[in-house]
Amino acid sequence: MKRNIMEYETVELDDERSCLVIIDQTLLPATTKLVELRTAQEIWDAIYLLKVRGAPAIGVTAAFGIYLLAKQIDTEDYDFFYREFVKEKNFLNSARPTAVNLSWALERMEGVCKANREKGVKEIKEELKKEAVAIKEEDIWVCRTIGEYGLSLLKPGDGILTHCNAGQLATSKYGTATAPIYLGQEKGYGFRVFADETRPLLQGARLTAYELYASGVDVTLICDNMSAMVMKNGWVNAVFVGCDRVAANGDTANKIGTSLVAVAAKQYHIPFYVCAPTSTIDLDTKTGADIQIEQRPEEEVTQMWYEERMAPKGVKVYNPAFDVTDNELITAIITEYGIAKAPFETAFQEIFQKKEEKGNR
Amino acid sequence: MKRNIMEYETVELDDERSCLVIIDQTLLPATTKLVELRTAQEIWDAIYLLKVRGAPAIGVTAAFGIYLLAKQIDTEDYDFFYREFVKEKNFLNSARPTAVNLSWALERMEGVCKANREKGVKEIKEELKKEAVAIKEEDIWVCRTIGEYGLSLLKPGDGILTHCNAGQLATSKYGTATAPIYLGQEKGYGFRVFADETRPLLQGARLTAYELYASGVDVTLICDNMSAMVMKNGWVNAVFVGCDRVAANGDTANKIGTSLVAVAAKQYHIPFYVCAPTSTIDLDTKTGADIQIEQRPEEEVTQMWYEERMAPKGVKVYNPAFDVTDNELITAIITEYGIAKAPFETAFQEIFQKKEEKGNR
Repeated sequence: MKRNIMEYETVELDDERSCLVIIDQTLLPATTKLVELRTAQEIWDAIYLLKVRGAPAIGVTAAFGIYLLAKQIDTEDYDFFYREFVKEKNFLNSARPTAVNLSWALERMEGVCKANREKGVKEIKEELKKEAVAIKEEDIWVCRTIGEYGLSLLKPGDGILTHCNAGQLATSKYGTATAPIYLGQEKGYGFRVFADETRPLLQGARLTAYELYASGVDVTLICDNMSAMVMKNGWVNAVFVGCDRVAANGDTANKIGTSLVAVAAKQYHIPFYVCAPTSTIDLDTKTGADIQIEQRPEEEVTQMWYEERMAPKGVKVYNPAFDVTDNELITAIITEYGIAKAPFETAFQEIFQKKEEKGNR
Repeated sequence: MKRNIMEYETVELDDERSCLVIIDQTLLPATTKLVELRTAQEIWDAIYLLKVRGAPAIGVTAAFGIYLLAKQIDTEDYDFFYREFVKEKNFLNSARPTAVNLSWALERMEGVCKANREKGVKEIKEELKKEAVAIKEEDIWVCRTIGEYGLSLLKPGDGILTHCNAGQLATSKYGTATAPIYLGQEKGYGFRVFADETRPLLQGARLTAYELYASGVDVTLICDNMSAMVMKNGWVNAVFVGCDRVAANGDTANKIGTSLVAVAAKQYHIPFYVCAPTSTIDLDTKTGADIQIEQRPEEEVTQMWYEERMAPKGVKVYNPAFDVTDNELITAIITEYGIAKAPFETAFQEIFQKKEEKGNR
């Protein structure tokens, strides 16, 4: 059963065998284990225990999951079917109440039931499958489109630095920051990638270096404090990172350490690109100062991964999960509807107009 | 026997009990264990196994060590004494052949034997003790003087960021980068210090945060990738770091990550100070480009401290031990003979002239 991780998609539906197949990300990078999810409890556990993570990937898991559970509701009666469906939906939705893509995907699936209630249960099940597949395909389309825009900014042989994991493992396929890398790999661009290990939780070492290496990309792992040296060595032509929230002025919240990479990129005249699905651009947030930064437990810094405590007991620890990169440090923000450059307010208006024109796909 | 680490000096002679007392730094921060060294083998092991580390501290250990061993040579005959002394000296010198302070201190001690050969063995032993004490006192004087110059650049309540460990644990007392902090602490300056953990070997978490916390300094541990955020928050008024080699033009080699901190300091208009005993200024090295950078094993990044491998097997790792901070990023270089500012070539000339005038102390 041991095969290369990149032969799989992050979340895969096996409809014939009535199961979902995911990679257990809690075991990476030591062990690549595929897990089959069939029951509501198994799907709930996979999300709750972070076996599958990353908002887009969670949304897709929930969509396929609720389809599989709906398929097992043995009735021709719509009202009975719908009541059972909602029960399962509410249960899955309780796995991670704060992950917006989880409830968003489940609401969208429930909408399919209601919209097709006249068609009969068998047909509704078919429609549910179509919708789940569509959610996944949209995710793939968004990432792939961001990848194409990103790739247009690169040339063969370029050195690329990335921070944290905005990779395939956080989405259905391609990732966001990694999408230009994977598309370049398909075309034989021969990129050389530098992956920041990303303390304290090491997503760069555990996930990004892992998935890029498995896909055959030329990737070199570095500690976060080495980015300036790698840039000064002339090895980096562009930086690509993901984002958790982009304010209306382009200020970008992303994994802690992102803004330090941006500062170094400015010093060494290297373009710094943020890959942002339009769903992460929050026009209601005016600037980065309005973004609240989550503080995480100090143990992540002082003892996680370690065999013993690595700092004196009682010492203060500052452990913000994110930082804000000022818009002046960002060369461009790459969305599925085009590349936004400063002034970002105006650029975002154009991008959202384009999105509306294309039917808010 | 468990007392606060800061009640001890890094290397202490207990002449009455004929032993050296050191803190076993390999066990920090989990365990504070004092070790008494008596025999040549014990002293050799302590240096070889890095129980005592940092060039100045190693030099002092060797000086006290050879004195203790000389004391045990039971003879009135100079020639016999000298032969035994050289045997012991050569043995100690083999512990770490590359650490320049080790051989430098031992040569200096041997010179005392030769210079006093007419005085008789008993008196020579007294002179050896005086010389070892002088070596230690000079180290303390250099660090304290650097601290005073550094302190003159600070005001009460300042926030200070430091990287790696150029602390008391690497010297006899005060450290270099930490000297202004300790002197400020004595005067109740109430500094707030931020210690970079310093991947991959975590000297910042394990040693700097440890010694500052133990001395009652207000210290906060951060991951290396958080420095930009801490600076942007307005919490840092100055950066102080040590150095391994300073070129004639002021380019400075120090622990990997130092140059990234310097870039961030520039972005946020924070002065960046290098603390450099004149012994580390190498006028024969023209610029940083002439400094060879040691590459370390990849396992330090992928599995040291961890219970299991944190990156895929086979992935490339870049692990330089040092980086070079360009002179344009350095506000000033603080030596025991004054504060050097750009152009550093001229400033260093003045500093070395001053050193010569004061008798090359």
